[in-house]
Amino acid sequence: MLSNIRIVLVQTFHPGNIGATARAMKTMGLTNLVLINPRQFPDEEATRLSAGATDVIDNARVVTHLEEAVADCVQVVGASARLRSLPLPHFDEPDDMAESVTQNAQSAPVALVFGRERSGLTNDEIRCCTHQVSIPANPDYGILNLSQAVQILAYEVHRAWRKRDDSDYAYQQPTESTPPSREQMTHFQAHLGRLMQQSGFITQPHARTEEQLQALFTRAQPSRKELSLLRGLLSSLESHLPER
Amino acid sequence: MLSNIRIVLVQTFHPGNIGATARAMKTMGLTNLVLINPRQFPDEEATRLSAGATDVIDNARVVTHLEEAVADCVQVVGASARLRSLPLPHFDEPDDMAESVTQNAQSAPVALVFGRERSGLTNDEIRCCTHQVSIPANPDYGILNLSQAVQILAYEVHRAWRKRDDSDYAYQQPTESTPPSREQMTHFQAHLGRLMQQSGFITQPHARTEEQLQALFTRAQPSRKELSLLRGLLSSLESHLPER
Repeated sequence: MLSNIRIVLVQTFHPGNIGATARAMKTMGLTNLVLINPRQFPDEEATRLSAGATDVIDNARVVTHLEEAVADCVQVVGASARLRSLPLPHFDEPDDMAESVTQNAQSAPVALVFGRERSGLTNDEIRCCTHQVSIPANPDYGILNLSQAVQILAYEVHRAWRKRDDSDYAYQQPTESTPPSREQMTHFQAHLGRLMQQSGFITQPHARTEEQLQALFTRAQPSRKELSLLRGLLSSLESHLPER
Repeated sequence: MLSNIRIVLVQTFHPGNIGATARAMKTMGLTNLVLINPRQFPDEEATRLSAGATDVIDNARVVTHLEEAVADCVQVVGASARLRSLPLPHFDEPDDMAESVTQNAQSAPVALVFGRERSGLTNDEIRCCTHQVSIPANPDYGILNLSQAVQILAYEVHRAWRKRDDSDYAYQQPTESTPPSREQMTHFQAHLGRLMQQSGFITQPHARTEEQLQALFTRAQPSRKELSLLRGLLSSLESHLPER
């Protein structure tokens, strides 16, 4: 599905932006890059900034017109810093755009189109689009670097894909994960309670203070190992207290 | 609230990454940058890549230890590419992190901490943190450029802020927005229906075809101006048809 998502850059001026775009794409599982009339490509700077994503650079398709890049696409989303006068459907929020794009990409190619660093997309290029999207930003300073805009929209596409039932994305899991049993927690809390009394911290049988601190430790969700460390600490402290 | 959110970069190697970070921050309304022992700063490359965010660069605080940067913070989130052995609470999803951070930033400073380009954060630095966050990415190529990681997390913070009831974020609105009235739509649909019959497109009184095409135009949500253009087109076509 992610392979159906095409990133299209129109007349990019700085080859470094092409390289940074390739890297941004690959971190989010996108590999399909098309360049319309790049000013300077291939270029050392593009390769350098692509870091480990040189395959995306090497497989990039270079064409002269946007229509060639998107003819087979069922959805073409133009990324634009500001609303245009041509009233295409507009996504105010990139996450809505990403849900729509990942849905369509199940069955056919879709494209996200980014314009020139300074002037964005022309009206003719907007006419090749089915939708527009803006990245909500600081109204006083809202123009993102080109490759940063690609990174954000690629990230939102990846996020929409992760949240789908049929994605097989797996979060990293910490290795140790069996929590202590209720019995182990109860033993610990009893031990803590005895320490609170024997140390003179609790002078009257005030269940409240004991409960509050016990709740804190429960909320901390100690692992079995941590609980064992705590018990050891309590025992060391206890050994200095007078018997009661 | 956004001014309570501090971006902290630890021992950044490339001054360009500091500049690109400043730009990424400012596009998302963040201005509070702290640098721990940057290798080369101030630097021309940092200024150049900050584009219009030189104020963020100029106001950046430079200190020697992470503790100095975050001592007054109530929450310190370490951005890390992989889980560490120290079991801090971990946000699998940056949007969860952003909701937590924007909530706390209502009343006190919070920090997002980013490590070195190659080696991330040391264990001592992780100990200064209250939480960790990772950016879910391609398992085969998941290390984002430092300023790209800042851009994504800053974007998520801005998003969480936008979604709060008390934010005053305003989406760009298209200028023309009064839709046509029901009466105007009905007139148009009747006009279209007449054309379908008079042209011979509909040979039997098949309400279905008329309804389906009329529904398409309703779904397109034409503006008053567009409706007027369509009426004009229908009239021009009509003028060539035989009277019935």
